[in-house]
Amino acid sequence: MKKRATSLKDVASAAGVSVTTVSRLLNGTIELPLETKSRIQAAIQELRYEPNPHARSLSRGRSDTIGLVVPDIANPFFATLVSAVEEEADRRGLALSLYATLNRPGREIAYLSALARNHVDGLVFVTNHPDDGELASRINQTGKVVVVDEDVPDAMVPKLFCDNEQGGYLAGEHLVQNGHRSVLYVGGPEEMISTRRRYSGLRRALRDASIPMDGLLRYEGEYTVEFGRNAARRFLSEGMPATAIFASSDEIAIGLIEVLREQGASIPREVSIIGFDDVGPLHLFAPSLTAIRQPVRAIGQRALALLVDTNWEQPEDLLSEELLPVEIVARNSVAPPSRK
Amino acid sequence: MKKRATSLKDVASAAGVSVTTVSRLLNGTIELPLETKSRIQAAIQELRYEPNPHARSLSRGRSDTIGLVVPDIANPFFATLVSAVEEEADRRGLALSLYATLNRPGREIAYLSALARNHVDGLVFVTNHPDDGELASRINQTGKVVVVDEDVPDAMVPKLFCDNEQGGYLAGEHLVQNGHRSVLYVGGPEEMISTRRRYSGLRRALRDASIPMDGLLRYEGEYTVEFGRNAARRFLSEGMPATAIFASSDEIAIGLIEVLREQGASIPREVSIIGFDDVGPLHLFAPSLTAIRQPVRAIGQRALALLVDTNWEQPEDLLSEELLPVEIVARNSVAPPSRK
Repeated sequence: MKKRATSLKDVASAAGVSVTTVSRLLNGTIELPLETKSRIQAAIQELRYEPNPHARSLSRGRSDTIGLVVPDIANPFFATLVSAVEEEADRRGLALSLYATLNRPGREIAYLSALARNHVDGLVFVTNHPDDGELASRINQTGKVVVVDEDVPDAMVPKLFCDNEQGGYLAGEHLVQNGHRSVLYVGGPEEMISTRRRYSGLRRALRDASIPMDGLLRYEGEYTVEFGRNAARRFLSEGMPATAIFASSDEIAIGLIEVLREQGASIPREVSIIGFDDVGPLHLFAPSLTAIRQPVRAIGQRALALLVDTNWEQPEDLLSEELLPVEIVARNSVAPPSRK
Repeated sequence: MKKRATSLKDVASAAGVSVTTVSRLLNGTIELPLETKSRIQAAIQELRYEPNPHARSLSRGRSDTIGLVVPDIANPFFATLVSAVEEEADRRGLALSLYATLNRPGREIAYLSALARNHVDGLVFVTNHPDDGELASRINQTGKVVVVDEDVPDAMVPKLFCDNEQGGYLAGEHLVQNGHRSVLYVGGPEEMISTRRRYSGLRRALRDASIPMDGLLRYEGEYTVEFGRNAARRFLSEGMPATAIFASSDEIAIGLIEVLREQGASIPREVSIIGFDDVGPLHLFAPSLTAIRQPVRAIGQRALALLVDTNWEQPEDLLSEELLPVEIVARNSVAPPSRK
């Protein structure tokens, strides 16, 4: 039996410290109490640890720090994604610097320039607004960027998304199976691939069931609770023109449900709702919310793997787009329609 | 009328960029496209902007970056706190580096040493485990740290908490007013001030109502959904020894409700529940959850203000403890008890 090589993680757990601490001790970027230092050195000798050259391929001689740029940490979807990337970075002995852009293009550009100045070795980049081209051009100059969750269309780097089209299809199929023939889609910004692909999957499911396309309505705006509230008000003021709503994020669903409840529209009796993300405690809602679940932790782990394992000298490695599968979690917010 | 001095924010909004971008352009740590640069320079001249020396007191000549250390970004309470600090930093023209410690002491120490090496100008520090003294001693060596949310007892730096005792009192008072005379407190780690002070406020409210102290039970563990689940199982296996439960975080409340619902215990008919934090969408739960609301955004803003405005040369300025008030949000999870 071939003995498995000792990893940084083995050393860290033998010494009772984090992988980051060992990694930083080894590259001289941390001062530790003498006692801690001796404990780590003893573990290194005892386990005959030798640094793994492959694990250092991205970062050799540089900061051993990965950057992660997200729009808004208060959004539970991004918070969970951040936490998954953080754990994976720790597992690989890399530190993580996290930047929140508050959705402002100026801040995104500033963080890309931090990478250009070598403060981080690579960047996992999440945007959620359309790009006028500046972002893509900056990403292409910088290199070592993995684009996650939403596209930056002209960026020539590896990209990782959930399978948005499949998610839309699963939602549509579930609504059709419950007898719905009129569906309102409430999406985020219309230029974003998440919004477009989820809609397109929903439309395909309705088409496959031979439902006329005038049964498919569409409101698009922002992935926010506030936009969800506005969409519900519009839906009510238009006389509830569909028997089911597909809300394309947890935040939108929360806003929709708030206003529908306030106005006394019963879910699912008068209108069925299906959400997207399934990050918040939707299972405790009244009624519990049926939703498409994103593999958030898997996205975070895979994003970091792409950053570390991509051969950045090999142009054909850079043009990849990878989709991770989603699933439907059926709860109690979808029922057969009680009205036309 | 005295004309208000032009701020960095005025320049930023005139130029259509973020405050961070202007600040970084001014201190030479960013390269911008020529067009953007000219737009900012035009705004500076037009508005006759002069850098405000006071705003730079913390950071003069250094990184213009603040560090924020939190235990776990996937927890919505910390996620919201991070977002509040981030916005306030941006408003003040400071960049923010965010570190998640995943609750590991080794990582906390590593981040403090980043401050010691001047990578950041100051640190907002949030821990959620007991300190064996190493953390406090490292914080005292480092200086320019504000301790937020949970105490590091021997750290001689400004501290900022929500008024945990008052929160416990409000919860107890509300339960007493609804006729409860037996209450289970489900707290986090018993050494943490949040857990101790919330319990102590609850006890004071019950005492004020002349309720015998054998009516007050206590389970303590972790601020996690998993611990909430375990607490509910224990509560059921002990034959529901109280008519009301005060859960000392959203996460604990979520775990409790999950298991109580699964096991068919009706809320609030068989047991009333009151939570703490009120960060998640508790208003949509079945039943909607009564909770003590933390002023999370105010905590984030005030933490940054303390970091910037404290006179770090003045030892008596450092020993402050500030409490921000909490409030009770009454919803539908508390009702008079139907059993003894």
